[in-house]
Amino acid sequence: MRFTSDQRLDDGVLERRFTLGEIPGILWTPGSASAPAPLILLGHPGGLHRMYPRLVARARHSAAEGFAAATIELPWSGDRPRSAAAEEARADLRRALEAGEPVDDGIVDRLVLPLVDKAVPEWRAALDALLSLPGIGGPVGYAGGVISIGVRLAVVEPRISAAVLFAGSFVPRALFEEARQITIPLQVLLQWDDEGNDRQMALDLFDAFGSTEKTLHANMGGHIGVPQFEGDEGNRFFARHLR
Amino acid sequence: MRFTSDQRLDDGVLERRFTLGEIPGILWTPGSASAPAPLILLGHPGGLHRMYPRLVARARHSAAEGFAAATIELPWSGDRPRSAAAEEARADLRRALEAGEPVDDGIVDRLVLPLVDKAVPEWRAALDALLSLPGIGGPVGYAGGVISIGVRLAVVEPRISAAVLFAGSFVPRALFEEARQITIPLQVLLQWDDEGNDRQMALDLFDAFGSTEKTLHANMGGHIGVPQFEGDEGNRFFARHLR
Repeated sequence: MRFTSDQRLDDGVLERRFTLGEIPGILWTPGSASAPAPLILLGHPGGLHRMYPRLVARARHSAAEGFAAATIELPWSGDRPRSAAAEEARADLRRALEAGEPVDDGIVDRLVLPLVDKAVPEWRAALDALLSLPGIGGPVGYAGGVISIGVRLAVVEPRISAAVLFAGSFVPRALFEEARQITIPLQVLLQWDDEGNDRQMALDLFDAFGSTEKTLHANMGGHIGVPQFEGDEGNRFFARHLR
Repeated sequence: MRFTSDQRLDDGVLERRFTLGEIPGILWTPGSASAPAPLILLGHPGGLHRMYPRLVARARHSAAEGFAAATIELPWSGDRPRSAAAEEARADLRRALEAGEPVDDGIVDRLVLPLVDKAVPEWRAALDALLSLPGIGGPVGYAGGVISIGVRLAVVEPRISAAVLFAGSFVPRALFEEARQITIPLQVLLQWDDEGNDRQMALDLFDAFGSTEKTLHANMGGHIGVPQFEGDEGNRFFARHLR
């Protein structure tokens, strides 16, 4: 892990950009911390530059509660090399949604499974590097989408103790089986009329999670309409489980 | 409204029992309040004596946020005269649930519609009396079950500005139409495996509410397993909407 730049934001949060091999990432740490800060991994749909305004807002919100936050670029997104297969699957999904057609399992599998397979080891490598830094301590939470990445991470990565998962994208059937193996506390966010997701599928996934403590927060509106107060709810959820 | 007793609880909350005509009720007000306190009506399934421990816990929780709280006995419950028709409908419902049979719309209508028709005017009369007391000011929230009473109240009573509804009982089909007319902010609590309710019906009801701000909080467990942290979530919801 190599830091490439740092700046102090006006609320005292330290923002450091880094690269991990060829993967760019960003780490935010609270301005003042007496003990090592729990770390929240911020999931997103890919494209750090495009997502930056929302990511930095989430990170500052977390930092106000004493949490560090970090994110890395997804495979085939942002400045990273593209995948022809992923672009094709994404185009097929977009076509199906725009035509109002049911989304074929095959498309979802082609789009999501290779992404999960490639991204999850990268997040775990980032976790290794981040947890070796001074001022960052366990436990660790995962927050956001891609929900399938969060599901796989929650299954394979024992350092993740709690997750706020955003049910805002299609999930391959194969990952429902993995969902049943999850036992950590979960808070699941669902936008009731998410134009890029299927409500019943999201409810079925919530039902499938093996966790005994899981809460679904369903709010009105489309994909990008998650209410501001859910940021506070996420902080309180992590405060209950990461301290 | 006639006060019949009062006591100061150890956290300073003033608990006053009253009767409104023949209807018993309880009012809790915060120990210290500089301005008139917003009022939260505490819904419950009937039986003030049996429900008292949970009601007083909820009222103290609300009082800690500066809210007054009040409740009245339901028709045909507690010390009030019984209804043979209601008892019969309740027995029919219990039999169907114990036999694992689908719950017939007719049973639900017989059980709930007369209750709503009789209870809602009583809650409104209580509201008239409560809002005329010094130290109690609008706006007003409704919190709890019977959800069908909350639905009807939210439709007909303009003084109710926000509601936390507990989806823990069957709702007559006729009330789905009323649900569509509701426009106030709602937070709906659903126990995912509520043994006395139907999950899909509750999700359909949530979908039906006309409010643009509505949030569903679904948690694991049965009817009486609502997690403690939902008390805080209810307080924060009312703090957003009643201040």
